[in-house]
Formats: sequence, C-alpha cells, structure tokens
Amino acid sequence: MRIALDAMGGDHAPGPIVTGAVQALQADPDLKLILVGDQEQVEACLAGHPDAPLDRVELVHSAHVIGMQESPVEAMRTKVDNSITRCWQLLAEGRAAGIVGAGHTGAMVAGGLRLKRFLPKVRRPAIATVMPTLKGPCIILDVGANIAPKPQHLVQYGVMGSIYAKHILGREQPTIGLMNVGEEAGKGHELAKTTHGLFNSSPLKERFIGNIEGRDIHRGAVDVVVTDGFTGNVVLKVCEGMFEFIMKMVGQSVFGVLHHEKALAMSAVQELVAKYDYSAFGGAPLLGIDGVCIICHGSSKERAIQNAIGVASQHLRSNLNQRIVQELEAMPSLGEDE
Amino acid sequence: MRIALDAMGGDHAPGPIVTGAVQALQADPDLKLILVGDQEQVEACLAGHPDAPLDRVELVHSAHVIGMQESPVEAMRTKVDNSITRCWQLLAEGRAAGIVGAGHTGAMVAGGLRLKRFLPKVRRPAIATVMPTLKGPCIILDVGANIAPKPQHLVQYGVMGSIYAKHILGREQPTIGLMNVGEEAGKGHELAKTTHGLFNSSPLKERFIGNIEGRDIHRGAVDVVVTDGFTGNVVLKVCEGMFEFIMKMVGQSVFGVLHHEKALAMSAVQELVAKYDYSAFGGAPLLGIDGVCIICHGSSKERAIQNAIGVASQHLRSNLNQRIVQELEAMPSLGEDE
Repeated sequence: MRIALDAMGGDHAPGPIVTGAVQALQADPDLKLILVGDQEQVEACLAGHPDAPLDRVELVHSAHVIGMQESPVEAMRTKVDNSITRCWQLLAEGRAAGIVGAGHTGAMVAGGLRLKRFLPKVRRPAIATVMPTLKGPCIILDVGANIAPKPQHLVQYGVMGSIYAKHILGREQPTIGLMNVGEEAGKGHELAKTTHGLFNSSPLKERFIGNIEGRDIHRGAVDVVVTDGFTGNVVLKVCEGMFEFIMKMVGQSVFGVLHHEKALAMSAVQELVAKYDYSAFGGAPLLGIDGVCIICHGSSKERAIQNAIGVASQHLRSNLNQRIVQELEAMPSLGEDE
Repeated sequence: MRIALDAMGGDHAPGPIVTGAVQALQADPDLKLILVGDQEQVEACLAGHPDAPLDRVELVHSAHVIGMQESPVEAMRTKVDNSITRCWQLLAEGRAAGIVGAGHTGAMVAGGLRLKRFLPKVRRPAIATVMPTLKGPCIILDVGANIAPKPQHLVQYGVMGSIYAKHILGREQPTIGLMNVGEEAGKGHELAKTTHGLFNSSPLKERFIGNIEGRDIHRGAVDVVVTDGFTGNVVLKVCEGMFEFIMKMVGQSVFGVLHHEKALAMSAVQELVAKYDYSAFGGAPLLGIDGVCIICHGSSKERAIQNAIGVASQHLRSNLNQRIVQELEAMPSLGEDE
C-alpha cells in the first residue's frame, strides 16, 4: 500500500509532516510513502530520523507550494509544479493508492475536481469529518467540497457517510440525519425539504431518522450528519472556535480558584484538549474520489499527520470505495440534477 | 412602559415565567406588564408572590397554548385564542410597546410576519442573538426568522445589527462580518458573494470587515455577524449542543482527578455554565418589527425571563427602532429584491 504525502502542506511543513510520516512508517510495516515536496528540504528533515525505514520511502520533487491564503484556482494555474498537484498526479497515474495533505483545503479539493476521478455513479465528492459526541464519534459531510449541492448529492452523501460510519467508525447500523432548522418534515429551505423527501423515497429510508437540529450533533443523535458544504464548513469551524473559547474560559475560571490541585486539573484539561482538539483530528476524507484523499487541518503536526496516514490505510484496507460503488449502483435513480 | 409577556410560553410555563415577571417588576419601578395566558393559572402563580406590585400588572386571558412541537401556521389557524397571537394583538393595538415570550419560536415569528408590522424600509425582520466571545459579546443575525433571504435583506441585517451592537452592547464603532466559508472576497455561494459586493458598495462599507469564518465568531473578530436564517439557526444550536458537550467532558475529566478541591472546581464550572448557558441568555430580539419582540429560549426560567424583559425595556428606552428607520432611510436603494 503506497500513499503520497504532501510534505510541504500546512502551517508547520515540512519538519513535523516528515516526522509524522516516519512515525506512520514505523507503526505500519506494510506502509510505503511517497514524500512530495522540495527534495532538499525533505531530505534534510529525513536526515534527522536515522531510524526511518528509508527502503519504504520514495521522494518526488516539486518546486512550488500553494500558500494557505492563495486562491486555489489561480495558484494551480501559475504554480504548475506544486506539491498538491503532484500528489494528485501520483494518484491518477496509479503510483499512489491514496494521498494525504495538510495544505490549502480548497486546492486539495480543486486538484481532485480537476482530475474528475470520481467513483462511478458519484456526482460530487464530499469532505467528511469525524466529530466527537456524547455517544462516541459521528461523521458530518459535506464540510466544504461543494457549497451549493443538489438534493441528489446530499442523498449520495448519506450513502457514502453511512458506509464510512460502518466500516471506519464501527457503527453496525448507522443512522443518518439531515441538518435542518427544526425536526418536522416540512422545515427548512427548498434544498432541505426536497432532500428530506428524496431520503424517504430512497433505500436509505430505514437508516434516515429525518431532520436534526444543530444541538443534536454533539448529543450523538445520529451517526451521519448530512448537510451542504456551506453549512457544514461553518459548523465545523464554529465548533473549532467554540472549543478554543470554552477551554480558555474553563482555564481562567477553574484554574483561578484552585491551589494545591491546580496542576492535576491542568493536566486533565490538557488531556481533554488533546483528545478533542479539532485541529488534531486524523484528517477528513474527500469521499467519492476514485482513490483515497485525506485532507488535514492546516495546523497539523506529527500526530495529526500520522493519524491521517492511518485513516488513509484503513480506508484502503476496508475497501470503502468498492462498497460505495456497489451501494450506489444498487440504488434506483434519484432523478437528474443538472 | 408596558410590555406584554406570554405567561404560557416555554417548557416551564407558567410558574417560573410569572416569577420572572414579578422579579422584573420589582427591579424596575417604571415597568408595567400584561400577563397573557390562562387567567386562572396565572392568578394562581401570582398568588404565590404576595409582594408582587399588582398595581403594575394586568391580566389578559387566552384559552390556548401553542405546543413546542406544533406546526406554527396550523396551530395559529386552529387555536385562534392562543397566548402568542394575543401578545401580538396587544402590540398591534398599541396597548403594549413590546412583547416577550418563551413559546414556540416559529409561532412568535409567524405572529409578527402575519401582522406585517415591519418598520418603514425594513424588508424582512431578523432574529438577533448575543454570543459570548473572547472579546466580549457579539451579535449574530439572522438566527431563524428568514431561512432564504435575499442579499438586500442581509445588508439590512447589518444596519439593524450594528445599531443594536452600539446601543445595547455599547460598541462605539461596531464592525460587521459576513459568515462565509473563507475570508477572500470571491468565496461562498451566490448569496454570500452578492451580499459581500452589496456591503462594499453601501454606506456600511466602513464598518464591514468582509467575510468571516465560523471560528472567528468566538474569537471576537467582529461585533455583528450577518448570516442567513438557516445557517444562523444551525450555528446557534450547534453552539448550544457543543457547550453542553464540552461542559460534560470537563466535568468528567477534571472532577475525576481532583480530591480536596473538587468542590471549588465544581462551583467554578457551575458559575461558568450559568454565565454562558445558551438557554439562559436574555432573549433574542426580532429586529425590524414596529415595536419590540423578544424571543426567549423554550427552556427559560425566572432569570432568563427577567433578563428578557430587561432587554425589551432597554430596547424601548434606547429608541432602537427610530435609529434603524433613520439609518435605512438615509441609505441609497440596494436594488429590488423581489
């Protein structure tokens, strides 16, 4: 199993990215990695890991890096030899079965859309993210690949999300909920109303519990939260900011009143931050792509990169894509969307 | 100043609602309240407060209550004599200058929309909610009055929100941000892109800092967050669920490791919960209405009701509506929206 890693992607690249790669290789003897990026810099990082299993590492040079603030379309046009495009090319050529990167999310998605390597029957790929809830992790999709989807796309997200929830999160009978402003069937804008109807007339009906509201996500009301990429992206980032905010408030108020056991409380809070840190999650898969693409948070360091590579391996080993294609092929037509 | 209160609205009505009313009256000698609801029940609740200033309380009977799970349109049609419609009638007749209620949010809004008592120039009212941030409270609107607004409506939300931020939150020069999936000007769906352009060609340009992302809300990036009612409603409820979730996780992890100072930490966390409890905030104004309408969370108890009545009084005393009309009248046309 060979995975291409964008060694130049993210706020901390390339050092911690390469370290995460080495850790992933050490943890999984079947893993091979292609490190994509500035050869000189990547080699220098690798030199700092004399114990790295270099026989399972390949280097592919790329001269450019797409900055986090650049327009992805513009950047991909002018910086032809950038590390993200290189990763996608390796996937397209079959040299890598999956790609992992913490660079510009828009550019990661744009790279995949440009290649149009979607799985058969998939109309639009979606970024799926795992969220912690009171009842264990759930998955929310789309969090930003497609900000103006059609109802048919959202139903396909339900298929892809429930396969992910079953085979990656281990939910035997995953339930699906549609993000909306109220639970009743008639609630929401046109997209929500039509999607609600489509779910109920599709084979997903049994798994579809209907509309859910924002507060239901963290209560663990469903295993798969389906939403458009605009709402999903806002939700994901609101959670990130909210987590940051509350942990600061907790720090100020709780640590402020403690004396002898302050250190104990601080380490408990630090553990919690490490556990739920929205920026350290193992990366979000771009589902619907023919291949595996895991998009990491820009602030990813060693642990997040190692986790993301692990998610990519698991994705490949679970034959997720084959299962998605099988389920979509078995579904009756949802009608035309364009 | 006379305010009508839906004594039957919310999960805990009428007991704690009437208690909140009595507390508000005791705190503000200029306040007069009309308690709307089942006369017998409301009188029984009042009897429990022998110190209530009854000379400033009026009772208006209504036979029906709209349940929290009912369809508002259907319920308003069949339960003609419901407490929410009665409150709006009191406002329309000029017997009350404002209304406050913790009942069905959809019905509260529908009541206002049915009357069409919008301020001159206001195209659509918006529900505004105060959110805590690292830099003090900000205001986000719309959180659910209009789930499919036009760009012109969003620009008006910017006007109403910044007047609220200035005169209620005390921000001298309120800044406005547009909720989006990225900071760059070209980001987002059509609504976001067009709204961004409209803001920049309006007199609000100076206050408009551009797009903000979900994580910017709690960081306190702006004083006024403008968004459509669908996204805003989801965001508000996600925050509520997330707060609940994190505080439970904090409780489990921090309290679990403490021994002697556990009680200290618990009371600090309880204070924090009381301070940021999303269900206890002082009520969300429906801005753009000719009059004052404060919508409270369904789980509101004494304190939330008292706060909401306080917000209604402050709204009236600050002449917010007059200021909104003045600013909208001074604005050039934003173009037709329908």
